[in-house]
Amino acid sequence: MAVVDRTTQRADISHVRTLSSFSVATIHEAQDRTGLLASRLRPIFRGTRVAGTALTCEVAPGDNSSIHVAGDVARDGDLLVVTPTSACDDGYFGELLATHMVARGVVGLVIDAGVRDVAELRDMSFPVWSSAISARGTVKETPGNVQVPIVCAGVAIAPGDVVVADDDGVVVVAREDALEVIAECRAREAKEAAYRKLLVAGEGTLDLFALRQKFLDAGLRDIKE
Amino acid sequence: MAVVDRTTQRADISHVRTLSSFSVATIHEAQDRTGLLASRLRPIFRGTRVAGTALTCEVAPGDNSSIHVAGDVARDGDLLVVTPTSACDDGYFGELLATHMVARGVVGLVIDAGVRDVAELRDMSFPVWSSAISARGTVKETPGNVQVPIVCAGVAIAPGDVVVADDDGVVVVAREDALEVIAECRAREAKEAAYRKLLVAGEGTLDLFALRQKFLDAGLRDIKE
Amino acid sequence: MAVVDRTTQRADISHVRTLSSFSVATIHEAQDRTGLLASRLRPIFRGTRVAGTALTCEVAPGDNSSIHVAGDVARDGDLLVVTPTSACDDGYFGELLATHMVARGVVGLVIDAGVRDVAELRDMSFPVWSSAISARGTVKETPGNVQVPIVCAGVAIAPGDVVVADDDGVVVVAREDALEVIAECRAREAKEAAYRKLLVAGEGTLDLFALRQKFLDAGLRDIKE
Amino acid sequence: MAVVDRTTQRADISHVRTLSSFSVATIHEAQDRTGLLASRLRPIFRGTRVAGTALTCEVAPGDNSSIHVAGDVARDGDLLVVTPTSACDDGYFGELLATHMVARGVVGLVIDAGVRDVAELRDMSFPVWSSAISARGTVKETPGNVQVPIVCAGVAIAPGDVVVADDDGVVVVAREDALEVIAECRAREAKEAAYRKLLVAGEGTLDLFALRQKFLDAGLRDIKE
Amino acid sequence: MAVVDRTTQRADISHVRTLSSFSVATIHEAQDRTGLLASRLRPIFRGTRVAGTALTCEVAPGDNSSIHVAGDVARDGDLLVVTPTSACDDGYFGELLATHMVARGVVGLVIDAGVRDVAELRDMSFPVWSSAISARGTVKETPGNVQVPIVCAGVAIAPGDVVVADDDGVVVVAREDALEVIAECRAREAKEAAYRKLLVAGEGTLDLFALRQKFLDAGLRDIKE
Amino acid sequence: MAVVDRTTQRADISHVRTLSSFSVATIHEAQDRTGLLASRLRPIFRGTRVAGTALTCEVAPGDNSSIHVAGDVARDGDLLVVTPTSACDDGYFGELLATHMVARGVVGLVIDAGVRDVAELRDMSFPVWSSAISARGTVKETPGNVQVPIVCAGVAIAPGDVVVADDDGVVVVAREDALEVIAECRAREAKEAAYRKLLVAGEGTLDLFALRQKFLDAGLRDIKE
Repeated sequence: MAVVDRTTQRADISHVRTLSSFSVATIHEAQDRTGLLASRLRPIFRGTRVAGTALTCEVAPGDNSSIHVAGDVARDGDLLVVTPTSACDDGYFGELLATHMVARGVVGLVIDAGVRDVAELRDMSFPVWSSAISARGTVKETPGNVQVPIVCAGVAIAPGDVVVADDDGVVVVAREDALEVIAECRAREAKEAAYRKLLVAGEGTLDLFALRQKFLDAGLRDIKE
Repeated sequence: MAVVDRTTQRADISHVRTLSSFSVATIHEAQDRTGLLASRLRPIFRGTRVAGTALTCEVAPGDNSSIHVAGDVARDGDLLVVTPTSACDDGYFGELLATHMVARGVVGLVIDAGVRDVAELRDMSFPVWSSAISARGTVKETPGNVQVPIVCAGVAIAPGDVVVADDDGVVVVAREDALEVIAECRAREAKEAAYRKLLVAGEGTLDLFALRQKFLDAGLRDIKE
Repeated sequence: MAVVDRTTQRADISHVRTLSSFSVATIHEAQDRTGLLASRLRPIFRGTRVAGTALTCEVAPGDNSSIHVAGDVARDGDLLVVTPTSACDDGYFGELLATHMVARGVVGLVIDAGVRDVAELRDMSFPVWSSAISARGTVKETPGNVQVPIVCAGVAIAPGDVVVADDDGVVVVAREDALEVIAECRAREAKEAAYRKLLVAGEGTLDLFALRQKFLDAGLRDIKE
Repeated sequence: MAVVDRTTQRADISHVRTLSSFSVATIHEAQDRTGLLASRLRPIFRGTRVAGTALTCEVAPGDNSSIHVAGDVARDGDLLVVTPTSACDDGYFGELLATHMVARGVVGLVIDAGVRDVAELRDMSFPVWSSAISARGTVKETPGNVQVPIVCAGVAIAPGDVVVADDDGVVVVAREDALEVIAECRAREAKEAAYRKLLVAGEGTLDLFALRQKFLDAGLRDIKE
Repeated sequence: MAVVDRTTQRADISHVRTLSSFSVATIHEAQDRTGLLASRLRPIFRGTRVAGTALTCEVAPGDNSSIHVAGDVARDGDLLVVTPTSACDDGYFGELLATHMVARGVVGLVIDAGVRDVAELRDMSFPVWSSAISARGTVKETPGNVQVPIVCAGVAIAPGDVVVADDDGVVVVAREDALEVIAECRAREAKEAAYRKLLVAGEGTLDLFALRQKFLDAGLRDIKE
Repeated sequence: MAVVDRTTQRADISHVRTLSSFSVATIHEAQDRTGLLASRLRPIFRGTRVAGTALTCEVAPGDNSSIHVAGDVARDGDLLVVTPTSACDDGYFGELLATHMVARGVVGLVIDAGVRDVAELRDMSFPVWSSAISARGTVKETPGNVQVPIVCAGVAIAPGDVVVADDDGVVVVAREDALEVIAECRAREAKEAAYRKLLVAGEGTLDLFALRQKFLDAGLRDIKE
C-alpha cells in the first residue's frame, strides 16, 4: 500500500545553489518565519551548510526499507529527508547507505530519527541532521512511501522542495516560492549589513529599530539612576 | 508593567576577574553546592570560561524585546542572563544582537531558551550557554523586566551578581559573597592539588578520604578473593 | 547491605583488544542487535573508541560512594560502568577521580548520569560516555553494590563483561560470548567491504540486498515517469 | 501577513456523525495507519468521543490571537484545532473562550499546547485534547493563520477535514476520504467482532491470524517442555 | 551547614482563606502573570483547590531529611513546599509523613519531585501536586534548608508566602502582596462575569475585546466568501 | 533467532497471592529498595493492585509479534511484561489481545511502550501499566524472545518472577526471594502500624525516627524564635 513516485519535479538547480548561500535563519525570516523544522534536528558535525532538492521518504519504526527505495530514485542534487511514522531513535542510516547515496549524487541527509557510523560519516564529509545517534540497526521488511508529501519534524515537505541545513537547523522552501524567497533573502542581507555597521559603531538596537518609544508606550517603566 | 532598572550595583570587577580563574565545579563546591544552573544549559562551543556581572532580563515566549532593552543598560563586563517566562526554544539572540552586545562591553550570554547564528557567534568568539539552538526568530512586542531579580534555569539571580560559565555549566555567586567564595575556592584548589599528587602516586580515594571504615560501618560487605 | 565483590573473573584481555578493533555498530549487529545501551549515553569528546572489562557499580542519587569503592578493586584494562538507582544528572565523576582511575589502569567511564570537569577530562584524554554534564557534586554517604550484575541504560551487564564504546554509543559483549562475537564481526566486516566496493561502483542496495521484488510483493506501488 | 479564510468547505455532516461512531484506533487502522496525531495530546477528562470539522488555527508562542479570530468563523459542528508555531505549554484556552465556542457551535478543542480552567471545562463537558495543562495566560498581539492547512502534532490537517478524538488520541480523516474510510471501518468492525467471539471461546491469535508457521519460518525457535 | 528557621512570619490567615476562593488562573493573571510554578507539577487527584502558607524545604536527591525537619516547625494552615537540589523522581513523601503533617495542621504538599502511597493519600484526601509518582523510597542522611527562600519549579518562594493550587497548577502570592492581589482578583472576576453573559448571548471575543480592527491593523487578511 | 521458552517455572501461586496484599512501596522497601520499574510506567486506570507471574516478551519497535507468541504460552495467573528493544510509543496492545489474554488467564499487562483501546480495557477491568497511550497499531513481522530474562523499564526480570503493580508503580520480586520478602513486608507493616498510631497522636518523625540529634550532628543549624 506504499508508493514510490518517480515523477517528482525538482526545484530549479540554480535556485538551490543560490539558496545555499543564505543561512537557515535568513531564509526562515525571509519567508515570514515559516518552514523551519523542529530544533531537535542537529548536525552530526558542525560547520557545514548544504542545500538540495527534497527526496522524501517515510519509514516505519525500526525499518529502513524506504531509504533503500529512495536510493533507487535519487538524482544529483537530492537531499534525503526521512520521517518515521512514529518516534524512533534507531540508527536508520550508516556508512554503507551513505556510500550508496554519494554514488547517486545525494548531498546529505535530514532525518527525524537516529543515524550511526557518525565517525565514518564525518570522515566522508557526508552531512547529516538527525534527532538521535544510535548504533541500533533496523530491519528491511515494510516499505513506506517515497517521494510523496510528508511531515518531517513538524513541517510539511513536498518532494522536490528545496531544503537548506546549517548549524542552526533545517528549513524548507517550497519549490514554487524559491525565487521570491531568494529576493527577500537578498533584501534582508543588505538591510542587516547596514545594521551591522551601525551596531559596530556603537548604536543601540532600541534606537535602530525604533523600539524605545514603542516599549515605553507598552508600559515599560524606566528606573533611572 | 515591566521595568528596567538602571541603578544596579555591579559586583567588584576585581572579584569577577578572580572568580574567572576558578572552574564552575570548584565555585559550586566552594559555596556549599549552591548556585548551579540546570544542566540543560550547554555552551554553543567548548573550551571557554567566562565571568561577568549579571545583566538580567525576562522575556515572554517568542519575544526578545527585553534583550534590546538590556543592550541599552549594558556596561563593560556585564554577562547577559535571559530567562523566558515560560519554556520556549526559539532563537532569541543571534549575530546582530551579539555585535551590539560586544560594542557595549558584554562578555557573553546565558539563556534558558534558544539562540541562532551559532556558526557566526563561534566565529566572533562570543560565548553562549543556551538550552537550545534554533533558527526561529522572535517578535519585539512585549518588553519584560530588565535588571530585576530573576530565576534562570532553577536558580535565583540578582542583577550585578557574578556569573561564571565553562564547559561544565553555569554558576552564580551573590555579589556580597564573592570575597568569601574566592577564599574558599583557593583553599579547595590547594587541597585538591595535594590530593592529586597522592592519587597520581597510586594512593586510593577510600584511604585518602577516610571512607574505608565509614563504608564498612554503613553496611558494605567485602567479598574477598 | 551493599556488597563489593573482589572475585570477578574478567574477559580475556586478548578478546577485549580484538573487540576494540570493531565499531559498536558492527558488534551490535554481530550479536543479533543486542547489548546496546540507550542512546542518551554520549561521549564527552568525539573520535575515540575504547574497550575494557566492565567494573560495575550502582550509585544512589547524588552519592558517588560506590565509585570510590570501585577504585579499590580496579585492575588494568577495566572500564568503569556506573548506574544510578534512580535517574540523576549530578556530576558523579571529575578530574580527581579520573586521575585515580588512570593510576589504577582504568581505561574509561560509562555512566548513566552526569560527569564534571569535562575540559580537564578531555585534556587528560580520559574517555567518558555519560547521559549528562553537570558541575553539581555528590555526597559520599551510602555505598551501593560494586562488581555485581547491573542494568545500565536499559542493558544487563555482568562484571568482567566486555564493554566497547565509540561515537555511536556503547555496547556490551558477555564474557562467554566474546570469541563468537569476534568471529561474527569479522564475517560481517568482510561482507560489508564487498558491498562497499559495489556501492561505490554505482550498484543500488535494492538489487544488492535483493529487496526490489520483496518490496513489490509487500505491496509497494511504483509510479513511473 | 496572516490570513483568515472564510471560504472553507466542511466535510459532509453525515460523514462526521458516522465517523464519530468508530474509535480513533479503528479509523486509524482503516486508513492504513495514517492520520494519527502524536500521543502527547491527551484528553483533559476521560470517557468522551467527539468528531467535528477541523477549524484550524496557528498561534505564536504565548499569543492566542488566532483563537479569537477562529471564533469569528466557527460554525456548528466545527472542532477547533490549534497548533503553535513553536513548542509552548502556555494555557491558550480557558472557560471564557469555551463559553464563546459553545455559543458558536464548536464541539471541542484539539491543541498541541496548554489549556487552563480544566475543572470548569470538565463541568461544562467541553472536551479538550491538549499537550499540557497550565494556568499561564497568553497575550493577544500577533494573529496567525486561521482556516489554512496546518501541521498539528506531526500531522497535516486541512480546514474542513474530519477530526475524531477519544481516550486513545486524535485522528484526522481527509474530507474527500471520509466515505471510503467509513466503509473500511465497518468492514474492520465486522471482522473484529468475529475475532472477538473466537478469542472469548479460547482460540489463540497465533492460529486465528495464521502467525504460527510464519513466525517459525522467520526463525522463532520453540523450546518445549 | 543547613538551617531550619523557626522565625518565619506567615501570611495573614484571612488573606489565605480569601485567596483560596480564587482559581490559580485568576490569581496568576491578577498579579501580572507571575508566580506560576512550572506545569510539570500535577495534582495526584483532581477536583481540589487548597491554599496555605508556604513551609519551604530543600531536599538532596534521594534524601527526605528536610521533610522530617519541616514537620517539626509546621503550623496550622501551612502548605509544605519541597524542592530538590537536583532533579529527582524518587518518592520523597507517603502516607506516614502525610499522617504526621495532618496531625500538625499542614493542608497539602507541593513538590517538584515524586511522591508515593498515592492511593492512600487520595483516601486521606491529602492534596498533593508533584512532578512524579514513584514508590522508590529515600534515605534520611543529609538535612537541607527549611523555611528559607527557595526556588521551586522555576519560581522563587519565601517561607510564609501564600501558595494556592488547583487542577490548573500552583501559584505563589508574596505575603506582602496578598491584599492587593485579592482586590485585583475580585475586579477580574467581576469583569469576567460580565464577559461570560455576553459570550453566552452570542457575542464574539473579537468585538468584546476590541480585537477586530487591531488584528486587521497588524496585517490580518480576511478572505471572504 | 528469537526463542519462546515453554519450560518456565512460575513462582508459587500462594506467594503471589500473599504479595498482592502488600503495596508496591512496601515490597520495594522490603527488598532493600530494589526491583522497582521506572516511574514512566503509569496505570491506565487507578485504584487497582494486581500481582502475577511474569510472562516476559521482547518486541521490536512497531511490531507486536511476540505478544501473540506470549498468548500461546500464557497460563492462569501470568502477568504479561513487555519491553521494546528500542523506545517506541506505539499501541502494541488493545481490546482484542486483552480478550485473548483474559481467556488464557492473564491478570494484567506491564509494558514499557504504548497501548490502545484504553476505554475498552477500563470497561473490561483489565489492568495495564504503560509508558504511553497511542492508537497507532503495529505490524506482525518479526517475533522477539518470549519467556527469557529481560530488562523492562530499567529492571532485570526473569520469567516466572512475581510482578506486583498498583497506583505507585510496578515492582518485581525474584521467584526465589518471595518468601523472604513476604516476611520482611509483614515486619514492615507491623512497624508502620505502630508508627502511624504515634503520628496520629501527634508525635513527630524527628523524635520517632531518632533524627533530631543526628541532623544537628550533621550540621543542621536551628534558628529559634
